[in-house]
Amino acid sequence: MVDIHRTHYARQLGEDLVGKQVRIGGWIEDVRDIGKLAFVTIRDVTGACQAIVTGDNVQAAVQAPRQSAVIIAGTVQKSKAKDFPVEVKVAEFAILTKAVHPLPIDPTGRVESAPDKRLDARALDLRNPKTAAIFHLRSAGLKVVRDTLRGEGFVEVNTPKIIGSASEGGANLFGFDYFKRKAYLAQSPQLYKEQLTLGLDRVFEIGPYFRAENSHTVRHLTEFTSIDVEAAFLDYEDVMDLVEKVVGNVIRDFNENHRVELAAAGVQEIPFGSNKKIDRLTYEQCLDELVKEGEKLSFGDDLSDAALRKLGEMHRGFYFIMDWPLKLKPFYIHEKEGNEKLSKSFDLQHGYLELVSGGRRLHDPERLRSRLVEQGLNPASFSEHLKAFDWGMPPHSGWGLGYDRLMMVLTGSQNVRDVVLYPRDTDRLTP
Amino acid sequence: MVDIHRTHYARQLGEDLVGKQVRIGGWIEDVRDIGKLAFVTIRDVTGACQAIVTGDNVQAAVQAPRQSAVIIAGTVQKSKAKDFPVEVKVAEFAILTKAVHPLPIDPTGRVESAPDKRLDARALDLRNPKTAAIFHLRSAGLKVVRDTLRGEGFVEVNTPKIIGSASEGGANLFGFDYFKRKAYLAQSPQLYKEQLTLGLDRVFEIGPYFRAENSHTVRHLTEFTSIDVEAAFLDYEDVMDLVEKVVGNVIRDFNENHRVELAAAGVQEIPFGSNKKIDRLTYEQCLDELVKEGEKLSFGDDLSDAALRKLGEMHRGFYFIMDWPLKLKPFYIHEKEGNEKLSKSFDLQHGYLELVSGGRRLHDPERLRSRLVEQGLNPASFSEHLKAFDWGMPPHSGWGLGYDRLMMVLTGSQNVRDVVLYPRDTDRLTP
Repeated sequence: MVDIHRTHYARQLGEDLVGKQVRIGGWIEDVRDIGKLAFVTIRDVTGACQAIVTGDNVQAAVQAPRQSAVIIAGTVQKSKAKDFPVEVKVAEFAILTKAVHPLPIDPTGRVESAPDKRLDARALDLRNPKTAAIFHLRSAGLKVVRDTLRGEGFVEVNTPKIIGSASEGGANLFGFDYFKRKAYLAQSPQLYKEQLTLGLDRVFEIGPYFRAENSHTVRHLTEFTSIDVEAAFLDYEDVMDLVEKVVGNVIRDFNENHRVELAAAGVQEIPFGSNKKIDRLTYEQCLDELVKEGEKLSFGDDLSDAALRKLGEMHRGFYFIMDWPLKLKPFYIHEKEGNEKLSKSFDLQHGYLELVSGGRRLHDPERLRSRLVEQGLNPASFSEHLKAFDWGMPPHSGWGLGYDRLMMVLTGSQNVRDVVLYPRDTDRLTP
Repeated sequence: MVDIHRTHYARQLGEDLVGKQVRIGGWIEDVRDIGKLAFVTIRDVTGACQAIVTGDNVQAAVQAPRQSAVIIAGTVQKSKAKDFPVEVKVAEFAILTKAVHPLPIDPTGRVESAPDKRLDARALDLRNPKTAAIFHLRSAGLKVVRDTLRGEGFVEVNTPKIIGSASEGGANLFGFDYFKRKAYLAQSPQLYKEQLTLGLDRVFEIGPYFRAENSHTVRHLTEFTSIDVEAAFLDYEDVMDLVEKVVGNVIRDFNENHRVELAAAGVQEIPFGSNKKIDRLTYEQCLDELVKEGEKLSFGDDLSDAALRKLGEMHRGFYFIMDWPLKLKPFYIHEKEGNEKLSKSFDLQHGYLELVSGGRRLHDPERLRSRLVEQGLNPASFSEHLKAFDWGMPPHSGWGLGYDRLMMVLTGSQNVRDVVLYPRDTDRLTP
């Protein structure tokens, strides 16, 4: 019976270990047979190392299919190989699970695979250092986001993904039978997070949300990860500062602590203005700029994908668009004092891509009811939500950040499917 | 227009601020009118403070419904009140949103409310310091869990909640129409997390899962939060050590850093054996103990709720039950070498309550296929999963921890609904 435990990861093998016994677990990436011995490259989650195999083990190594899971044990010695300062002279060479060839993709990345093939074999694709780097960065970013929000006094919450009413009109919701009733999958925690400011003051949630949208783009999925915050007694410009801090901290962490993963993903350094501030354009400024560029737009028009692409060419990197026309924004968005055609709202853009949407919310139940009616929604179907506004709702602001899209931007990926382990779209339900 | 920004939280008001201007945002908990002035207790997320209101503001304060959202500004001065070292002499007193009475529950907790009424008014219930404490602890625990797992080299992942096949038989799954196909809500990330060990080595996920179970108990919900881990090259006893570390760190953090919240929840200190180890009983030991107590059980029988309650009386606090009969465990569980009737499996119990289930997994595709057949499952419907085992699957172990249940135990709650903000069960879909 093989001992499955290892003592070290590949990256830990250094000259300080020369003469020591080690056990390494990983997979066979390469074997070079030179007769009496073989050089085996073994990779694990941290990197690659070289194993020198002799005797009976040579045949075993030569016959082992690439990508098989192995565990080796032996003595660390200095190496003459240019890529490895040390190597392992193998005493025990055990194949744990043989890989079955042909493999659906080449996880070394030497042979490029079609995106769909990679997604079909995602687990194997994670042996490609570039793919692995993206998901290590994704994990690292979540920590920075949470630490930043906690540092600002936000409490992590879990709100339900199963909801009882198709509140925002019911479009694009997945519905299902729920013990003789109808239930839906949440598109966002919007209503819950607003209610929670009543007692918890500042809340955040990072979770999956669902949209039954028949989109075929590089930036839409039916299931996505959203970072949502909501805070009492903050105005919209305060939570824009918070966006800046969250995104800025992730970028700094990646640039400072994850250079290796960034490089593996093909990114040298993520640019983020020298003053760590993000430009704040108003909707009307954007309109002026676009009209000058020949776009036919007037106040109240939404900015089309084409318009946003043009804007993204004029404003490289991140920028906010704020003070949108009120009628373009959802019922819960607060109007701007002094100009009620405008709203206390903002989007964070990166080029044409919308990453964040947020704003100050209405806290007055009467105005909220009026806005529902104005937007053709039925206040009765929001009764569960509206009642919380009769319990002394504080003024509050918040935002939702599409984490998958942020990861696209930061890892230089052109398709959201590159930064989601098992993406879901109209065509893809497996693996 | 009222400035909605505050400068301080209630808990921050101390003698160091005497003479300083402050703005406090919160809600009116109490008003005592003594003629020319009124004492107003204002509570926010951190605690309560006293405001001294004079002049025109007295009438406003006296007439303000309790629980209304307010913001006050004034000067900090020493107080003669026994509960407050300092108080705020109010210059500005602004009611932001009036509470509408009668309120559905008394959030001060002075009048006890029925559990269902509290859930119907959860946002208001969060103004009850006991309820708030539970959810502050819940948030704090998530940080400790994540930090512990990251410290052990685990990568945070997000696997899909929408799945394409009812893989483990289809019982208790919520199903729905998905672009002319059938999709389901995931009950666990089991298959995904196993696959991911192929490249990411150690993964964890904290997310919502769904069970269409017609249960009416204090410990089952249709939507629950699970902490899942899976690790290559670890055996089941290694991941039991990890359970011990994760649970132990949460308990230590609560006992050391969250005494106030624990006390508010009604817990003095969470006991956790002096050596921070959790007893490891085998299934067969448990069987012997139960038979001695008169239970009619023989090898291979599952332990009923009644049996577990009896066991819980004999073993107070946390304990593991390990080495279950193989046939009682899911197809992916590894048999014990040397006794193939037993499995490398474990549950973490607290009294009768199962908190964690885990074990070593099969990594050999042939044995996995045989086990599927033995258990009456069709390997063909697992083809998407099985193919990953042909890519050099490492030996691996893992577990799933029901976070809601852990929070029940740690906060001394008798009902899982006390530790979930918006619980979902067969009857409850709102708010």
